[in-house]
Amino acid sequence: MKALLIIAHGSRKKEYNEEIRELAADMAKSEFNRFDFVKCAFNQFAEPTFHEQLNELIESGATHIKVLPYFIAAGGHVSQDIPELINDAKANHPNIVIETTPHLGKFRGIIKMILDEVS
Amino acid sequence: MKALLIIAHGSRKKEYNEEIRELAADMAKSEFNRFDFVKCAFNQFAEPTFHEQLNELIESGATHIKVLPYFIAAGGHVSQDIPELINDAKANHPNIVIETTPHLGKFRGIIKMILDEVS
Repeated sequence: MKALLIIAHGSRKKEYNEEIRELAADMAKSEFNRFDFVKCAFNQFAEPTFHEQLNELIESGATHIKVLPYFIAAGGHVSQDIPELINDAKANHPNIVIETTPHLGKFRGIIKMILDEVS
Repeated sequence: MKALLIIAHGSRKKEYNEEIRELAADMAKSEFNRFDFVKCAFNQFAEPTFHEQLNELIESGATHIKVLPYFIAAGGHVSQDIPELINDAKANHPNIVIETTPHLGKFRGIIKMILDEVS
Protein backbone atom coordinates (compact mmCIF):
# COMPACT_ATOMS: atom_id res chain seq x y z
CA MET A 1 0.00 0.00 0.00
CA LYS A 2 1.13 3.52 -0.80
CA ALA A 3 1.49 6.38 1.67
CA LEU A 4 2.25 10.09 1.53
CA LEU A 5 3.96 11.39 4.66
CA ILE A 6 4.00 15.17 4.99
CA ILE A 7 6.74 16.39 7.31
CA ALA A 8 6.34 19.94 8.61
CA HIS A 9 8.41 22.11 10.92
CA GLY A 10 5.99 22.09 13.86
CA SER A 11 5.31 24.98 16.21
CA ARG A 12 4.75 25.75 19.86
CA LYS A 13 1.46 27.20 18.64
CA LYS A 14 -1.17 24.43 18.61
CA GLU A 15 -3.17 26.02 15.78
CA TYR A 16 -0.18 25.72 13.45
CA ASN A 17 0.14 21.98 14.04
CA GLU A 18 -3.61 21.50 13.80
CA GLU A 19 -3.60 23.20 10.40
CA ILE A 20 -1.08 20.66 9.10
CA ARG A 21 -3.12 17.77 10.52
CA GLU A 22 -6.22 19.14 8.79
CA LEU A 23 -4.32 19.48 5.52
CA ALA A 24 -3.30 15.81 5.68
CA ALA A 25 -6.87 14.77 6.52
CA ASP A 26 -8.31 16.90 3.69
CA MET A 27 -5.74 15.51 1.30
CA ALA A 28 -6.60 11.93 2.29
CA LYS A 29 -10.27 12.66 1.49
CA SER A 30 -9.55 14.56 -1.74
CA GLU A 31 -10.94 13.31 -5.03
CA PHE A 32 -7.41 13.70 -6.42
CA ASN A 33 -5.83 11.37 -3.84
CA ARG A 34 -4.38 8.08 -5.08
CA PHE A 35 -2.58 7.15 -1.83
CA ASP A 36 -3.90 4.59 0.65
CA PHE A 37 -2.71 6.79 3.51
CA VAL A 38 -1.90 10.51 3.80
CA LYS A 39 -0.39 11.38 7.17
CA CYS A 40 1.72 14.13 8.72
CA ALA A 41 4.63 14.35 11.14
CA PHE A 42 6.59 17.17 12.75
CA ASN A 43 10.25 17.99 12.96
CA GLN A 44 9.94 19.83 16.28
CA PHE A 45 7.49 20.90 18.98
CA ALA A 46 4.66 18.54 18.02
CA GLU A 47 3.67 14.89 17.68
CA PRO A 48 3.92 12.52 15.95
CA THR A 49 7.59 12.59 15.08
CA PHE A 50 8.71 11.37 11.67
CA HIS A 51 9.82 7.98 13.02
CA GLU A 52 6.60 7.51 15.01
CA GLN A 53 4.46 8.20 11.97
CA LEU A 54 6.66 6.10 9.70
CA ASN A 55 6.41 3.11 12.04
CA GLU A 56 2.65 3.52 12.27
CA LEU A 57 2.33 3.59 8.49
CA ILE A 58 4.46 0.45 8.14
CA GLU A 59 2.41 -1.34 10.81
CA SER A 60 -0.72 -0.37 8.88
CA GLY A 61 0.68 -2.06 5.78
CA ALA A 62 2.38 0.75 3.83
CA THR A 63 5.14 -0.57 1.59
CA HIS A 64 5.82 2.53 -0.56
CA ILE A 65 6.18 5.78 1.36
CA LYS A 66 6.70 9.20 -0.24
CA VAL A 67 7.97 11.83 2.16
CA LEU A 68 7.04 15.43 1.33
CA PRO A 69 9.10 18.09 3.15
CA TYR A 70 6.37 20.68 3.72
CA PHE A 71 8.71 23.67 3.72
CA ILE A 72 8.73 26.96 1.83
CA ALA A 73 12.44 26.89 1.03
CA ALA A 74 15.55 24.87 1.77
CA GLY A 75 16.91 25.91 5.14
CA GLY A 76 18.69 23.52 7.50
CA HIS A 77 15.69 21.24 7.98
CA VAL A 78 15.27 20.47 4.28
CA SER A 79 18.94 20.20 3.45
CA GLN A 80 20.18 18.38 6.56
CA ASP A 81 17.69 17.15 9.18
CA ILE A 82 15.20 15.52 6.84
CA PRO A 83 17.79 13.74 4.65
CA GLU A 84 19.23 12.30 7.88
CA LEU A 85 15.81 11.09 8.98
CA ILE A 86 15.26 9.50 5.56
CA ASN A 87 18.64 7.76 5.63
CA ASP A 88 17.90 6.34 9.08
CA ALA A 89 14.47 5.23 7.91
CA LYS A 90 15.89 3.44 4.87
CA ALA A 91 18.50 1.69 7.02
CA ASN A 92 15.88 0.62 9.55
CA HIS A 93 13.34 -0.56 6.97
CA PRO A 94 15.23 -2.10 4.04
CA ASN A 95 12.08 -3.78 2.68
CA ILE A 96 10.07 -0.56 2.45
CA VAL A 97 10.41 1.82 -0.51
CA ILE A 98 11.01 5.30 0.93
CA GLU A 99 11.30 8.26 -1.43
CA THR A 100 11.49 12.01 -0.92
CA THR A 101 9.64 14.56 -3.05
CA PRO A 102 10.95 18.10 -3.58
CA HIS A 103 10.05 20.46 -0.74
CA LEU A 104 6.83 22.40 -1.26
CA GLY A 105 8.46 25.61 -2.52
CA LYS A 106 10.01 23.70 -5.42
CA PHE A 107 6.74 22.26 -6.72
CA ARG A 108 6.38 23.16 -10.38
CA GLY A 109 2.76 24.23 -10.08
CA ILE A 110 3.19 26.69 -7.23
CA ILE A 111 3.62 29.85 -9.33
CA LYS A 112 0.50 29.27 -11.40
CA MET A 113 -1.50 28.25 -8.33
CA ILE A 114 -0.54 31.41 -6.46
CA LEU A 115 -1.14 33.74 -9.40
CA ASP A 116 -4.51 32.11 -10.14
CA GLU A 117 -5.68 32.74 -6.59
CA VAL A 118 -4.33 36.25 -5.96
CA SER A 119 -5.01 37.86 -9.35
CA MET B 1 0.01 50.08 -10.70
CA LYS B 2 -0.50 46.75 -8.96
CA ALA B 3 2.05 44.87 -6.89
CA LEU B 4 2.30 41.50 -5.19
CA LEU B 5 4.56 41.51 -2.15
CA ILE B 6 5.54 38.07 -0.88
CA ILE B 7 6.63 38.13 2.74
CA ALA B 8 8.60 35.11 3.93
CA HIS B 9 10.17 34.14 7.22
CA GLY B 10 13.79 34.58 6.20
CA SER B 11 16.70 32.42 7.31
CA ARG B 12 20.31 32.66 8.40
CA LYS B 13 20.92 30.32 5.47
CA LYS B 14 21.51 32.42 2.34
CA GLU B 15 20.19 29.72 -0.01
CA TYR B 16 16.78 29.88 1.66
CA ASN B 17 16.46 33.62 1.07
CA GLU B 18 17.79 33.28 -2.46
CA GLU B 19 15.12 30.70 -3.22
CA ILE B 20 12.39 33.18 -2.22
CA ARG B 21 13.98 35.93 -4.34
CA GLU B 22 14.07 33.55 -7.31
CA LEU B 23 10.43 32.64 -6.75
CA ALA B 24 9.43 36.31 -6.87
CA ALA B 25 11.51 36.87 -10.01
CA ASP B 26 10.05 33.77 -11.71
CA MET B 27 6.56 34.86 -10.74
CA ALA B 28 7.15 38.33 -12.19
CA LYS B 29 8.16 36.73 -15.50
CA SER B 30 5.37 34.14 -15.50
CA GLU B 31 2.83 34.09 -18.33
CA PHE B 32 0.15 33.98 -15.60
CA ASN B 33 1.32 37.21 -13.93
CA ARG B 34 -1.04 40.19 -14.06
CA PHE B 35 0.89 42.35 -11.55
CA ASP B 36 3.17 45.23 -12.55
CA PHE B 37 5.57 44.23 -9.78
CA VAL B 38 6.19 40.99 -7.88
CA LYS B 39 8.66 41.43 -5.05
CA CYS B 40 9.62 39.71 -1.81
CA ALA B 41 10.52 40.76 1.71
CA PHE B 42 11.63 38.95 4.85
CA ASN B 43 10.39 38.94 8.40
CA GLN B 44 13.79 38.14 9.90
CA PHE B 45 17.44 37.45 9.06
CA ALA B 46 17.37 38.88 5.52
CA GLU B 47 16.83 42.00 3.46
CA PRO B 48 14.75 43.75 2.35
CA THR B 49 12.39 44.11 5.28
CA PHE B 50 8.67 44.48 4.65
CA HIS B 51 8.74 48.25 5.13
CA GLU B 52 11.80 48.68 2.91
CA GLN B 53 10.18 46.73 0.08
CA LEU B 54 6.84 48.46 0.57
CA ASN B 55 8.44 51.90 0.33
CA GLU B 56 10.35 50.87 -2.77
CA LEU B 57 7.16 49.65 -4.44
CA ILE B 58 5.34 52.87 -3.61
CA GLU B 59 8.25 54.95 -4.94
CA SER B 60 8.09 52.89 -8.13
CA GLY B 61 4.42 53.81 -8.54
CA ALA B 62 2.51 50.93 -6.95
CA THR B 63 -0.92 52.04 -5.73
CA HIS B 64 -2.51 48.62 -5.02
CA ILE B 65 -0.38 46.22 -3.04
CA LYS B 66 -1.36 42.66 -2.18
CA VAL B 67 0.69 41.12 0.59
CA LEU B 68 1.04 37.34 0.51
CA PRO B 69 2.25 35.76 3.77
CA TYR B 70 4.42 32.99 2.35
CA PHE B 71 3.98 30.64 5.30
CA ILE B 72 2.91 27.01 5.55
CA ALA B 73 0.57 27.53 8.51
CA ALA B 74 -0.51 30.23 10.94
CA GLY B 75 2.08 30.50 13.69
CA GLY B 76 2.93 33.74 15.44
CA HIS B 77 4.23 35.45 12.31
CA VAL B 78 1.02 35.02 10.34
CA SER B 79 -1.36 35.73 13.20
CA GLN B 80 0.51 38.56 14.91
CA ASP B 81 3.66 40.01 13.33
CA ILE B 82 2.37 40.39 9.78
CA PRO B 83 -1.01 41.92 10.73
CA GLU B 84 0.94 44.47 12.80
CA LEU B 85 3.17 45.29 9.81
CA ILE B 86 0.09 45.67 7.61
CA ASN B 87 -1.64 47.95 10.10
CA ASP B 88 1.45 50.15 10.32
CA ALA B 89 1.71 50.23 6.53
CA LYS B 90 -1.92 51.27 6.13
CA ALA B 91 -1.50 54.02 8.72
CA ASN B 92 1.68 55.28 7.04
CA HIS B 93 0.26 55.13 3.50
CA PRO B 94 -3.43 56.06 3.62
CA ASN B 95 -3.58 56.65 -0.16
CA ILE B 96 -2.29 53.20 -1.07
CA VAL B 97 -4.60 50.17 -1.16
CA ILE B 98 -2.93 47.46 0.90
CA GLU B 99 -4.59 44.05 1.15
CA THR B 100 -3.51 40.72 2.61
CA THR B 101 -4.11 37.37 0.94
CA PRO B 102 -4.48 34.14 2.92
CA HIS B 103 -1.15 32.59 3.89
CA LEU B 104 0.16 30.01 1.42
CA GLY B 105 -1.06 26.95 3.34
CA LYS B 106 -4.65 28.17 3.05
CA PHE B 107 -4.66 28.53 -0.73
CA ARG B 108 -7.56 26.54 -2.15
CA GLY B 109 -5.51 24.95 -4.92
CA ILE B 110 -2.73 23.56 -2.77
CA ILE B 111 -4.16 20.06 -2.24
CA LYS B 112 -4.75 19.41 -5.94
CA MET B 113 -1.37 20.92 -6.85
CA ILE B 114 0.47 18.66 -4.39
CA LEU B 115 -1.41 15.50 -5.33
CA ASP B 116 -0.92 16.19 -9.05
CA GLU B 117 2.83 16.40 -8.58
CA VAL B 118 3.45 13.55 -6.12
CA SER B 119 1.06 10.91 -7.51
